[in-house]
Amino acid sequence: MDTSVDMDELDSPGVTPSKYPLLDRVRSPRDLRNLSIEQLRQVADELRGETLDTVSTTGGHLGASLGVVELTVALHAVFDTPDDRLIWDVGHQTYPHKILTERRERIRTLRQPGGLSGFTRRSESAYDPFGAAHSSTSISAGLGMAVAHDILESQGRATVRDRHVIAVIGDGAISAGMAYEAMNNAGSSKARLIVVLNDNEMSIAPPVGAMSAYLSRLMSSQKFLSLRDLAGKVARRLPSGIERTAKRADEYARGLLTGGTLFEELGFYYIGPIDGHNLDHLMPVLRNLRDADEAGPVLLHVITQKGRGYAPAEASGDKYHAVAKFNVVTGEQAKTPPGPPTFTAVFGRELTACAGDDESIVAITAAMPSGTGLDAFAKAYPDRFFDVGIAEQHAVTFAAGMATEGLRPFVAIYSTFLQRAYDQVVHDVVLQNLPVRFAIDRAGLVGADGATHAGAFDLNYLGCLPGMTIMAPSDEIELLHMTATAAAFDAGPIALRYPRGNGLGLQALPARGSLLEIGRGRIVREAGRQQGREQGGIALLSLGSRLGETLKAADELAARGLPPTVVDARFAKPIDTALIEQLARNHAVLITIEEGAAGGFGSIVMHHLALTGLLDHVKVRPLTLPDRFIDHDTPAAQIIHAGLSASHIVQTALQALGVPDVGRDALAGDLPLSRIAPTS
Amino acid sequence: MDTSVDMDELDSPGVTPSKYPLLDRVRSPRDLRNLSIEQLRQVADELRGETLDTVSTTGGHLGASLGVVELTVALHAVFDTPDDRLIWDVGHQTYPHKILTERRERIRTLRQPGGLSGFTRRSESAYDPFGAAHSSTSISAGLGMAVAHDILESQGRATVRDRHVIAVIGDGAISAGMAYEAMNNAGSSKARLIVVLNDNEMSIAPPVGAMSAYLSRLMSSQKFLSLRDLAGKVARRLPSGIERTAKRADEYARGLLTGGTLFEELGFYYIGPIDGHNLDHLMPVLRNLRDADEAGPVLLHVITQKGRGYAPAEASGDKYHAVAKFNVVTGEQAKTPPGPPTFTAVFGRELTACAGDDESIVAITAAMPSGTGLDAFAKAYPDRFFDVGIAEQHAVTFAAGMATEGLRPFVAIYSTFLQRAYDQVVHDVVLQNLPVRFAIDRAGLVGADGATHAGAFDLNYLGCLPGMTIMAPSDEIELLHMTATAAAFDAGPIALRYPRGNGLGLQALPARGSLLEIGRGRIVREAGRQQGREQGGIALLSLGSRLGETLKAADELAARGLPPTVVDARFAKPIDTALIEQLARNHAVLITIEEGAAGGFGSIVMHHLALTGLLDHVKVRPLTLPDRFIDHDTPAAQIIHAGLSASHIVQTALQALGVPDVGRDALAGDLPLSRIAPTS
Repeated sequence: MDTSVDMDELDSPGVTPSKYPLLDRVRSPRDLRNLSIEQLRQVADELRGETLDTVSTTGGHLGASLGVVELTVALHAVFDTPDDRLIWDVGHQTYPHKILTERRERIRTLRQPGGLSGFTRRSESAYDPFGAAHSSTSISAGLGMAVAHDILESQGRATVRDRHVIAVIGDGAISAGMAYEAMNNAGSSKARLIVVLNDNEMSIAPPVGAMSAYLSRLMSSQKFLSLRDLAGKVARRLPSGIERTAKRADEYARGLLTGGTLFEELGFYYIGPIDGHNLDHLMPVLRNLRDADEAGPVLLHVITQKGRGYAPAEASGDKYHAVAKFNVVTGEQAKTPPGPPTFTAVFGRELTACAGDDESIVAITAAMPSGTGLDAFAKAYPDRFFDVGIAEQHAVTFAAGMATEGLRPFVAIYSTFLQRAYDQVVHDVVLQNLPVRFAIDRAGLVGADGATHAGAFDLNYLGCLPGMTIMAPSDEIELLHMTATAAAFDAGPIALRYPRGNGLGLQALPARGSLLEIGRGRIVREAGRQQGREQGGIALLSLGSRLGETLKAADELAARGLPPTVVDARFAKPIDTALIEQLARNHAVLITIEEGAAGGFGSIVMHHLALTGLLDHVKVRPLTLPDRFIDHDTPAAQIIHAGLSASHIVQTALQALGVPDVGRDALAGDLPLSRIAPTS
Repeated sequence: MDTSVDMDELDSPGVTPSKYPLLDRVRSPRDLRNLSIEQLRQVADELRGETLDTVSTTGGHLGASLGVVELTVALHAVFDTPDDRLIWDVGHQTYPHKILTERRERIRTLRQPGGLSGFTRRSESAYDPFGAAHSSTSISAGLGMAVAHDILESQGRATVRDRHVIAVIGDGAISAGMAYEAMNNAGSSKARLIVVLNDNEMSIAPPVGAMSAYLSRLMSSQKFLSLRDLAGKVARRLPSGIERTAKRADEYARGLLTGGTLFEELGFYYIGPIDGHNLDHLMPVLRNLRDADEAGPVLLHVITQKGRGYAPAEASGDKYHAVAKFNVVTGEQAKTPPGPPTFTAVFGRELTACAGDDESIVAITAAMPSGTGLDAFAKAYPDRFFDVGIAEQHAVTFAAGMATEGLRPFVAIYSTFLQRAYDQVVHDVVLQNLPVRFAIDRAGLVGADGATHAGAFDLNYLGCLPGMTIMAPSDEIELLHMTATAAAFDAGPIALRYPRGNGLGLQALPARGSLLEIGRGRIVREAGRQQGREQGGIALLSLGSRLGETLKAADELAARGLPPTVVDARFAKPIDTALIEQLARNHAVLITIEEGAAGGFGSIVMHHLALTGLLDHVKVRPLTLPDRFIDHDTPAAQIIHAGLSASHIVQTALQALGVPDVGRDALAGDLPLSRIAPTS
């Protein structure tokens, strides 16, 4: 089948001239494979325009996508995707990839409810052979695919001959231990795996150009493996892209001196660097790699520029890493309406204030100083701030080491990324009862970033650990208190989990947080005596972010003559046993509410009540995230899908009391979601 | 205070000549610091003898300890421990360290109930600044300590000037991603950290000797940093110790050619290799490192021999890695009484059999082919067996990649080590619903290896994951079935968790396992109709390994006129809702029993019963591991400490029914533990 583009069609009369005429003809990557390099260059230019247009209406990860436009075109033009497996690490740079791979019609639904994911996703397309969102997984997955192909081929069961597997990974992502483990394994394997290192740290740009690309082409020719032993002599080497620090220039000098690269020591054949925006360089190197018969892994080092080809992005400090909707001409991003400070910002403010009083406080991030709110801390106390790179495992044990010497470390990290350091939390921190503070951001549902970034499990994987203390603030004032409490707490490990997004905008935000009593909740509303157990009294026991909805539910129940007791648990562990036993004794129904998977806070409460026998006398209903992943959506819609809205709470209470079922959907519709501030 | 050894005392009249006269005078490491190298050599010889004597009576990790005798003596003689921080990675090589550091009196309690831990432990000694048992944590912890010291010194709060931090890590442990993350961070730090790479892969031994040691001493002299840029020219380089494969020899050749080492690329100053058994070489190098003023991390590469100095160990294939009690003269280990096959062996047998029928089955281990029972598989199907090294993160995602291509991967791993790959389980396997099989060994308590190796949390951290299937066999026949079931299950991720140790010795072990219906438990004993809810009927719902104790408890209850229904749950997720609802409806008391932390299986049961309202009508009592860590002990004693013995089950049932409390301790004493085979 001839699927090449007929250039004549582009000017057919009667058709409104398209903004992107050549791109319009590329229905699938196959359509790229008969194009000339000049045509591919035009496709790339149009693809960049289409990417810009799209993100200007959807928002998203713009800079990374703009940086890989040419690489995306070249990879799909050279390799036989989707039969060849192309894996994008992290996946947030795949907007051009999605446009080229039969998803252009839906591209403007990117990150929108029901629309395309902002990351790669197997369920979305055969061109996404491995889903991602967390970093540094691509080499492991790719090696698995390459090895699988070899096995299937040796068994005579391979459906495709000589399948290629290509993993594209950034210079940040390759610094994680997981990527190293994968390279260490790949380097001793005969599997054919092509790793494309997408190095876009242009602030310390290495020299790229025709001579370097020439050498790379030379090395990647059919004969390159026979030249392998000479590589050290002929190659003009460049640094590995692993080091992210100022020492890199020094590394570079040493690299030239010693003539070695880290990747070769790990058993990879290293090619590069080459200019990742120059199709004249990219195409022949990729073709050589495709056609080489030799076994073993190859690393192709390409240099790209984040935000490439869009002046406002190139000029911006963060290269438009993640943007809101924007005006393409001016680059001006849509202003988000001025809202209350985020939980992240409130945490950062309080921790920085605490550090002013207490020189033992240190802060650690794994490559997310801004996302975790530590940027203010870093500016104020650079000597006590540590960005260890994408290295969550190390971050936690590094903090544990500091704690043994009497410092007070805060590890600020997203809930979903703390999963990367679970054993370090268990083995290095909790087993030794070291006072490491975990500031767990993005706990609960996270909106447009979807299930891969949700913080759904931290109450489970931390709640089971002996000696762990876990707090969850219901609003930003509570967050101030909990940050201060964690800073002062030296008796063992302690965590505070708080949601993504804005606080409630409370006016009375105090200058500083106060110390909370460990393991004590607070009664927010008390049902009158007449609402005790015999009278069908209801207790609502909320942990963390759902208190607003809980209070709304309380209003609704009160309006029905069933005013409940409302408690803000504050602590998921240790629970306030005295208060909870009292709730169980004095109420007919006890509803726990948390933004986390079943098995967390509500289970700790039920377990305690079961062992004390109190569970026999009260109807407990645990409201949690459901046992399924929740897709990207608006935060409000996610809460409804999760069954954690005020109306779900009301419904649960009425059902427990045997009040006729008015229907969940009806209720959800009856009670539109809006934010209600707690009254305390 | 003069703490040096008075050699004259050694021959004091009236004292029975000691076997180890010089070692007897070393009360603490301080006593080493005025000894001559010749005397230190004698201490080392005596220390080796004492280590041998000890392990011959206790069993334990012998080979690794014998390999570091001289290194242990040299480190304590040169550095000012415990003010200088000496961190042993993994910690199983620290028996000589324990003998030297004021624990000699207790050394024969090693790994015994109430005795010394087989690993380092902060609570045991100030000489153990960081506890371990899992590998590859020492560089992170050490960097944390070194950085903390710099901070405290800059604040005028350091209690010790120029504190040294030394991390001793093996060539296997340094291959883990975590160690790489730590080196990557250390290499860009000015902190003074000494990493001693203890390389004992003698099968591919590099040449060591006087010339090499001389060069190393030269490089580590006061001026070594000024020689740094020349290092590439003058140093005779050796391979990194990272590669564990046959390619290492090739690496070595390339290393010589290019003149670089991986460690230098990571910003370490590399010294080595030197002979780790030669104090004439070790002592001056360590002194130079101690006295050097320069900043930045150093890696000292020492070559040692596992099992060194004990002929039976040196001659043994595994160098006496872990031994039972043995005869020092002959090397003969105490025979363990011939018991039934272990769960590990039964799993390995069945998986190998499955692989004979199904060429899609592949098996992956992270450096534990023998511990996980995969050695048989590896022998039968070497092309489908993958040992990826100490790299749990990679192991899981590598398996996920293979699953995407239609293979059926089994990741065989200890419960405690799967914690290292939690995010990979969540993000790469479960979110994509890929059919990766997790064969989780050492689930539950593990005896002499203690809390660090217990598999206490897998039901928690896996049970919360949507779409995860989790099985737990109650005996070895069930394990056969579950292995076969996992092999055949392609609908998503599936795990089977089974305990350490022998099976029950069931005679009727079938040749092959049969497929189980997913999410269905089995009734093992049914209480008669007369024992229903109104009559105070009891249901015992056991998951996995505790079924034997549960049946014993059932006998005891029956003897008291309360014959219970007994169910083997088989599945922790999805639970058998129909069966469990029936149990709740037809019994007054429902006791769940599992060898895992609260929040796992019992919580899933309670959550379901709460949401369905059935919890309101049955007294549920979840028996789980307690919310504390359980020290190393005999397995039977651990179960009693955990409150999971038959008598605890009986006690719980009687209390729930309101039968007078006869006291837990009395009951535990009344009912000695013994194994009872299930009746099915």
